[in-house]
This record gives sequence, C-alpha cells and structure tokens, in this order.
Amino acid sequence: MRGSSRDAIFPLGRFSFACGQTLENAHLAYRVFGELAADGTNLVLMPTSYGAWPEDIDWVVGPILDPERWCVVVVSQFGNGRSSSPSNSPMGLAEGGWCVSHADNVRAQGRLLEEVFKVESPALVYGWSMGAQQGFHWAALEPERCQRLLALCGTGRTTPHTRLFLLSLRQALTADPAWTGSGFDGEPLQGLRTFALIYASWAASQPYYRSLSLAAHSYGSLEDYVEKAWLPLYRRHDPHNLVAMLDTWLACDVAAAAGCGEDLGAALGRIQARVSVVAGKHDLYFPPADCGAEAALIRGASFLVINSHLGHRTGNPRDDPAVQARLRQAVEELQQR
Amino acid sequence: MRGSSRDAIFPLGRFSFACGQTLENAHLAYRVFGELAADGTNLVLMPTSYGAWPEDIDWVVGPILDPERWCVVVVSQFGNGRSSSPSNSPMGLAEGGWCVSHADNVRAQGRLLEEVFKVESPALVYGWSMGAQQGFHWAALEPERCQRLLALCGTGRTTPHTRLFLLSLRQALTADPAWTGSGFDGEPLQGLRTFALIYASWAASQPYYRSLSLAAHSYGSLEDYVEKAWLPLYRRHDPHNLVAMLDTWLACDVAAAAGCGEDLGAALGRIQARVSVVAGKHDLYFPPADCGAEAALIRGASFLVINSHLGHRTGNPRDDPAVQARLRQAVEELQQR
Repeated sequence: MRGSSRDAIFPLGRFSFACGQTLENAHLAYRVFGELAADGTNLVLMPTSYGAWPEDIDWVVGPILDPERWCVVVVSQFGNGRSSSPSNSPMGLAEGGWCVSHADNVRAQGRLLEEVFKVESPALVYGWSMGAQQGFHWAALEPERCQRLLALCGTGRTTPHTRLFLLSLRQALTADPAWTGSGFDGEPLQGLRTFALIYASWAASQPYYRSLSLAAHSYGSLEDYVEKAWLPLYRRHDPHNLVAMLDTWLACDVAAAAGCGEDLGAALGRIQARVSVVAGKHDLYFPPADCGAEAALIRGASFLVINSHLGHRTGNPRDDPAVQARLRQAVEELQQR
Repeated sequence: MRGSSRDAIFPLGRFSFACGQTLENAHLAYRVFGELAADGTNLVLMPTSYGAWPEDIDWVVGPILDPERWCVVVVSQFGNGRSSSPSNSPMGLAEGGWCVSHADNVRAQGRLLEEVFKVESPALVYGWSMGAQQGFHWAALEPERCQRLLALCGTGRTTPHTRLFLLSLRQALTADPAWTGSGFDGEPLQGLRTFALIYASWAASQPYYRSLSLAAHSYGSLEDYVEKAWLPLYRRHDPHNLVAMLDTWLACDVAAAAGCGEDLGAALGRIQARVSVVAGKHDLYFPPADCGAEAALIRGASFLVINSHLGHRTGNPRDDPAVQARLRQAVEELQQR
C-alpha cells in the first residue's frame, strides 16, 4: 500500500542555468507520498530517471520505501516535460546553447525542500540511473546537506562508452527528416523506431532476452515486442524533451560541476553522506566495474552488485519482488550506518 | 611475412538461393595465400565477416596462419560487394524476398573448393563473427567434409539480443530519407552516422573505451573518433550491401538450415569436425555464455574465453600481438586433436 499522493508545482521564478541560459518562470513538478514529520527528519528525495514521469517510478513507495515512515518527494528532473522543459518553456537544445546540468537540478530541488518543506537536509536521496546521477551531485555539491545516498545503477560522471550509447540515441532522432537542425517540425517516427531498438538492446541484458518468452506475452515477434513494449515509452514524449535529457546525461560530470576539473576523486572525496552504491551485474551502460570504481573513491561507501537478468533495470525492478526485497534491505542497511 | 596473394573470381552460373530466388551468373570472389599441397590436405577456408573484404582480415595470414604451411583461401561472403551482392547483381533485399542464408555461402564455397582446388574437404575452417557462423554451417551441413573448425566470437544461431542490435542497425539505415521502401536513392549519410555510433558502441567493449586515449590518437572528441575510425568502414560500402549482410545475420540459424526445425542441439549434434570455440570475455553480442552454450552441444568441442578489452574484436586482434599469439596457439592445439 503506497497510500495517496499529491502533485504540485513549485515556481522557481527567474532561474539561471549553469550553461549560461536563463529561464523566466521556471518550475519544478513534484509528487509527495506520506507525511512529513514535525521535525522534518523523514524526507526522502527521489529525482526522476531518463524519460520517467513520477507515475512510472513511484511504485517504489510501498515495496521499497515505506510511506508510513517516510515522506517521499518524487521530483521531475528538468527536461522531462513536467518540470521546465523544451516542450513547456523557451528552453532549447544544445544546438542553441542550452544544456541542463544536474547542478541545476540539485539547486532547484534544494530550494523546493527549503521553501516548501522547510527541510534543509533530506534524510535520504534515493535515485536510479539519472536519479543516481542527481544523487551523486547532491552528495558532492551539497556535502553538508546530504545525509545518505542510495545510488542505484548510476555514476557521477558519464563514461565514454555510455556517451557512445547516448550519441547513437541522439543521432537516431536527429537523422529523422523531421529534424530541422535545431528542433523537430513533426514527429520523428522513423528516428523514434531506431531509438526504441537501441534503448531496448542496451537497457535490458543478454540474459534477459535469452529468457524472454515473446509468446507468453502475446508478442508476434521481437520487432512487435519493441514496437509495443518500448516505442510507446518514448513516443509519448515531445522529442525535444528526449534530446534535452540526453544532453543532460551526456554532460553529466560531478567533477566539473564541483569545480574539481577532471579530478573525479576530489569531487567524490567531498562527500560526507553515508553512501550505498548498487550495481546490476548485467547492466550494460553502468556496468559494475564503473559503479565500483566510483564507490571506491567515496569515503566509507558500500558497494553491492545484484545478480539479476534485468540489466540496467535491476535498479527499477517493478515486477521483481526478490530484487525489490534486496533494495528494501539496502535502504535499511544504509539507515543503520 | 604473409607472402603474396592472388585474387580471383569463381563463376557459379545460375545459382538458386535457399530463399527461393535465383541469380543468373552468380559468382564468388576469393583471395589465396600459400601453395596447395599436392594431396590437397593443407587448405584453410576463411569466410569473411560482416562488412569485411579480404584485405581487411587477411593480416591473419602470417601472425596466425602460416602461409608456408597452409594454403589459405579467403572467400567473400555473398552480399559484401565482391561476391554476388545487391550492388553488383539483380540481388535485392528482404523487402523483395531476397535473403542469403549461410547455407548458400557453404554450398557455393563447397563448389569453389571442389571445382577450382579439387579439394573435397578443407583441413580447417577458420572464421570470426559472421565467418564463424559460416563455419558452424559448414560443420553441421557438411559434417563429412569439415575436418576442423575454429569458430571465433560467433554462434550458429543468432540470439534474440543480437537480433535487437542488428534490427537497430537496419532501422538506422532505413530511417534515412534516402530509403525508398525497397532501396536507397542516394547515400543515407545521417543513417550511416547512427549506424557507425551503434556499431562502435557494441563491437568494442566498456573496458576498451575506459582505456582509449583519444588524444594519443589525435582525435578531438569521441564524436570525431567515430566519424574518422568507424564511419568510413561502412560508408565505403553500397548501403544495399550493408542491409543484405544484416539480413543474412538476422536469419542465421544452423538448426533451420540443417532441417532440424528449432532443435539447435540436433543440428550441432551432426557435427563430426574437431571444433574449438573461442569467445571474448567482453564480447557484447556474442557473449561467452552464448558461445559456451553452443560449444556444450558439440561433441568434444573445446571452449576458450580470452580476457581482452577488445570485446567482439578479440577474434580479429589486428593490433594485439598477445591475442594473436593465443589464437595461433589455438590453431596448433586444434591440429593436435
């Protein structure tokens, strides 16, 4: 039972992004579960992952985060179409000099917690994938405000190999005839089909597809499966938002954001939070080796590899109670530290 | 020293493909190194991999296959632009009902060996990637003619996960405005850029990109690296050939080709050759688990996993003398069995 939720908008007013661009009337969209304790000590911040809206990932409340104990605030990252994004504001894409940094997300989220919840410091930042990226930025940029971080299948700096994956997704969209050179003048449906195939091949894993029964799920073919189970996840978005979120991911570098140049160790060395880094054994773009290398740079961090065929989605195990139980346990272990 | 080579064309005349299509004046292109022994017992057949021409992979002669000992025959697979292909014949693509099966490659190559070299049975079939696929088809379809098989980073049946990778490559090309629905009326340059990014992300490995120094190779960026080191590999091909070879790979299923329906074990159980299966630890589309599962179905097969950051290219280690030495040793070990 995850209980009821409340959706709200937090107006940020005039907001200056790290890229140098400024937005009048920027805003964050967020969703709240549970009640904030009188002393404000039970707030869990959960930033969204790539292409996710709160309703896509808030199943976590209940199976993993107990809403009787926690007040969970799920915040849409800039660019997802709920918070300020190309589709709902004059925000543009990298072609026009626009790029959201996770430092921007952290700064806006910090204001939300202070001004709306009167909370200086969340008890826990819980993030998967791009949510984990935001968590690393919280911990390194606001070391005294971040008490605990559970970082699932993500890193603080995007690796060269992941950049290739992201560049292939971006190029898939901008290769479509609907791309004008700075935006889209129609739906890039053929590009979206390429995009969905690329995403499907990377986000699950080889063992996932080895065991997937198409017939059991009434898919006529692998092509049919991607068309029905993956394409709609991206087609529902304004394509400008898809590109904007890719640009944020491509630019993700907690060292640069923390003013440490290329020194990732210096940036992660700033962290004071108790941190648990969790990787999926078969995650193809945040492989355990990359997650573990960053965990080793964080003082006292624990590092856990979960052996699941879910691949990258080991950190978002919507239909896997066993992995959910392991993550619930990880939250509890982190609380004990 | 690999010695000199001779290029030649073998006319096949009227050739009927397994898909039901027939080509008048079909042909195979091949390249020969070394001298055939009087008794014909030293012939090594080396079929080509995806997108490869003989000159791309014949560096193997010397470092791995001694031309003083072997007569190495490198045969272009159908569709690569040298042997009969969409670009040099009326052969079409899957949209028109055309699809080359590796059974077609094996049958044509068998005629080449018989009619030109008077060799019924090659001493060794040496194949990497799509070359390994052809090797498995040789061993299962012509069990009495294939004495030994060294199958590098390949399987006899394309897995669902690899099909996704291939479908993303195909869709990248056909999403380009130059695609007409049945072919290309110009160069699909934007599609080729997506194609190159997808290929670069899969064919090497995460550790490869972790250690790659762009500056040391004078690349300005990751994008520059793909544009200069990968895009030309595909741009040099007629795009119809790129699609035709993808269609062959997508359709690759030695069980179906051997008349065993879906029973891969039955097809691989037909093999009489001494077989060595070699996988790359970080191969992302022929991962060791898939290669090993097939090796376990082949009587007496050996299975070796090489730990190299080259990923799929562990089986084509052009610039890695240590891996070359291990493959030379694998050839020798296979000869001893």
